[in-house]
Amino acid sequence: MEFNTLETPALMLDLDRLKANAQRMLKHCMDNGLFLRPHLKTSKSIDVANIATGGRRRGLTVSTLAEAEHFAKAGYEDILYAVGITPNKFDRVQSIFDKTGEKSVLVLDSLEMAIAVAESGLDNRVLVEIDCGESRGGLSPDDPALLLIARRLGAQFDGIMSHAGHSYSTDQIAVVKEIAKAEIGASVQAANKIRAAGIPVSVVSIGSTPTVFYADDFSGITEVRAGIYLFNDLSQYGRNICHLDDIAMTVLATVIGHNREAGVLTVDAGALAMSKDIGANNFLPEAKYGWLCDAHTLEPIGLAIDVVHQEHGSVKIDEPRKFDQLPIGSMVRILPGHACLTAAGGYGKFHLTNGKIWPRLDGW
Amino acid sequence: MEFNTLETPALMLDLDRLKANAQRMLKHCMDNGLFLRPHLKTSKSIDVANIATGGRRRGLTVSTLAEAEHFAKAGYEDILYAVGITPNKFDRVQSIFDKTGEKSVLVLDSLEMAIAVAESGLDNRVLVEIDCGESRGGLSPDDPALLLIARRLGAQFDGIMSHAGHSYSTDQIAVVKEIAKAEIGASVQAANKIRAAGIPVSVVSIGSTPTVFYADDFSGITEVRAGIYLFNDLSQYGRNICHLDDIAMTVLATVIGHNREAGVLTVDAGALAMSKDIGANNFLPEAKYGWLCDAHTLEPIGLAIDVVHQEHGSVKIDEPRKFDQLPIGSMVRILPGHACLTAAGGYGKFHLTNGKIWPRLDGW
Repeated sequence: MEFNTLETPALMLDLDRLKANAQRMLKHCMDNGLFLRPHLKTSKSIDVANIATGGRRRGLTVSTLAEAEHFAKAGYEDILYAVGITPNKFDRVQSIFDKTGEKSVLVLDSLEMAIAVAESGLDNRVLVEIDCGESRGGLSPDDPALLLIARRLGAQFDGIMSHAGHSYSTDQIAVVKEIAKAEIGASVQAANKIRAAGIPVSVVSIGSTPTVFYADDFSGITEVRAGIYLFNDLSQYGRNICHLDDIAMTVLATVIGHNREAGVLTVDAGALAMSKDIGANNFLPEAKYGWLCDAHTLEPIGLAIDVVHQEHGSVKIDEPRKFDQLPIGSMVRILPGHACLTAAGGYGKFHLTNGKIWPRLDGW
Repeated sequence: MEFNTLETPALMLDLDRLKANAQRMLKHCMDNGLFLRPHLKTSKSIDVANIATGGRRRGLTVSTLAEAEHFAKAGYEDILYAVGITPNKFDRVQSIFDKTGEKSVLVLDSLEMAIAVAESGLDNRVLVEIDCGESRGGLSPDDPALLLIARRLGAQFDGIMSHAGHSYSTDQIAVVKEIAKAEIGASVQAANKIRAAGIPVSVVSIGSTPTVFYADDFSGITEVRAGIYLFNDLSQYGRNICHLDDIAMTVLATVIGHNREAGVLTVDAGALAMSKDIGANNFLPEAKYGWLCDAHTLEPIGLAIDVVHQEHGSVKIDEPRKFDQLPIGSMVRILPGHACLTAAGGYGKFHLTNGKIWPRLDGW
């Protein structure tokens, strides 16, 4: 495609890479007898959901009610809103899930919210969140509240979910495997405790891209959730979860200035276009705010965005010839540090490398 | 207003504080005989622009062409797009500025782009950017290209602009004053050099909230640009640029979980709602990702968002009674670390504390 006709910054999607990433996970889950409930929080896109689910049009994970509403309107059913529900969101949940055939799924981790949901009139299914070591949301699998919640929810209680977000605290696959084992162990332990009290548990759901890819034994798990595998980024690459040429999302940017005296080249991709996420640097210190690549071949050219301002990305240049290789007005594509936050910069759409445009949602 | 009826996260604006902040700057500029060209990159809101300009409806600074288009459609004239222009944006510039009466203003800092603009058919006025020590965009005031650019632009050349973004590298007002002196010095030096060659220089524009507030002598400066003073945040507070009760923008969030075992309370304001900007911590290490406040009084309650995930903000809790003070479902307001990036999370609107809603723009 003719990149130089696009206004920048633009969010680019390489469809071949996206499809290959989606297919790899679909096959992995089929091989392991797992229901894949892909997380759409990164793309917030119907077109991406269609690829991620293999055209199934049911069974998604989302992070906002705006996403749930968006996918429900597009005909998706069985949508899991994977953030703890509270009463100020009940009205919207009601309005969204009226649109779907198969009722969608809420998450909670307290008796207070179980009572609130049970008394609300909402008839959505509910998963109870278990903390498998991340220390974010969730109950301990041996918390006595677990049984009280399941009993209070009655027929709405559908099962257990857990998320090992701490699988990103390492670049060692052996450690990821231990975290996956703990995630699965805590979830199955909680499910079995509830079953032992005579309450059926349909769903035992775990997920994070690293633990889904690298768990050795999924016994007792019915479904997995993952999302970033669709796009990948320097955070995944630095943690050995993907190869560099698995990164499907990039930012197209224009060189807007040469400050030769200061040794700084400026691109029009700053803090909003790239995000200020520097988590990739934990295991890839040279990641900075993203790597500059040839706009057509996507080969890294050995430069990074070193500093971001709102709309300016500053690239340190140590050899004058590099200014000449990137004249003002020329374009680069940038591999993002963290695709989820880069996509949320406010673009409103993906430009596919085949010229098509796919809309994406923002906000709540 | 009844905060507990709002869906969260929500971007809140305290109108009294906003008006007081706007008035302080308008008066400061009037007292110093300066044309104030407020920067609207934080709010991207017509309603805020009307307050910031004192109802004048002309003379804005913006950071994206989407903002320029938005304000032009609303009838604003004389809009400065303060990011270096490149040819892939000429068509949009043409379409935007067709809508305005008083032609709007572009920025560049190279002979290449001066030639491109001069040959483009665009008849916008142009400011040439000077680097006053930030080492981002801009030419040195003694760069020989300066005169070549002014000559090549001919009647389109309107003057000089500089931005002392490095005024945020300190919390010492004495240092801010030195940076302001250098910003003004470099700009005036560049303007005088061009005038000495017989070319008129109408505009000498500087700006950053700290340097505009604290410069001792504006001799030779015709206009100032600033924006964050309208809202303020913990970055400004930590650098002694504002008081805590000058912060006009907050995020309303709901407590969505208590992980008592891990000592973590979760709110539904994470990386998208707050941003991952931690610049406030440079001078206020306890700023973290924002301070939790009473939703009604806006008094800080001694807690901060310590960790952000995409939609989860984790708050470390050291005393069990603090969980009881913030039950699941209760609401807090959060003082942001960096208001510009918080506002850009994708909210699409401001909720005013008087119940009104003001739309805001996102994207490019």
